[in-house]
Amino acid sequence: MPKPPLPAELDALLREPNPATISTLKPDGSPLSVATWYLWEDGRVLVNMDHSRARLEHLRHDPRVSLTVLDGGDWYRHVSLHGRVVSIEPDEGLRDIDRLSTHYRGAPYANRESPRHSAWIEVERWHAWRPHS
Amino acid sequence: MPKPPLPAELDALLREPNPATISTLKPDGSPLSVATWYLWEDGRVLVNMDHSRARLEHLRHDPRVSLTVLDGGDWYRHVSLHGRVVSIEPDEGLRDIDRLSTHYRGAPYANRESPRHSAWIEVERWHAWRPHS
Repeated sequence: MPKPPLPAELDALLREPNPATISTLKPDGSPLSVATWYLWEDGRVLVNMDHSRARLEHLRHDPRVSLTVLDGGDWYRHVSLHGRVVSIEPDEGLRDIDRLSTHYRGAPYANRESPRHSAWIEVERWHAWRPHS
Repeated sequence: MPKPPLPAELDALLREPNPATISTLKPDGSPLSVATWYLWEDGRVLVNMDHSRARLEHLRHDPRVSLTVLDGGDWYRHVSLHGRVVSIEPDEGLRDIDRLSTHYRGAPYANRESPRHSAWIEVERWHAWRPHS
């Protein structure tokens, strides 16, 4: 798997609000994947979780993650990012989830009650696939 | 996370040719995710890989996997399956990849040259999400 930076075509794909899944490690070392919103900024990935998510504890225990982003228009085109979470911080004022929600749905996040956390992922390797024409 | 069987609604979702990602473990224990075709049959998951895929070696080393299936019509609806590979066999005559290709694309698999392997996944836990109405 190549190292960053990514080619411009994939950078553009990652900037769009595309479907994605994130995989983390449970304490027993098994992989756990789930669909996620993400933001691609300056070659890093922002994800955001409700404070109650077990995923948050998993990431504190082992920061290694994998993110697969599908092209929403043709999911046979996809890119996977392999790396690790380098920071986990409270999402003060829900600023990050509002950015994510606006990116994906065009409006701030509806639930203002439940605290959330943001995590930044540094990408170490990537792998991409596109359909044969 | 609940154990199988899955509710009928999710069983129906899994029977459709939906976008999915599979997460496996590299030899260093880090998670690796990639988009995949899958077939949901009798409560088990069939996936299929080119013989050259590193993923095949990863699965032989550690059979634990996670599969996230997105509803192709509205990817905010999704289901994740957590389990392990219970068999890896050569795909004799490319019968399995032809079934997968027909399910997803309506035609047998184009590449008849490269050997492939099939893996069956037994589901131990699942987790689903659907959009708030």
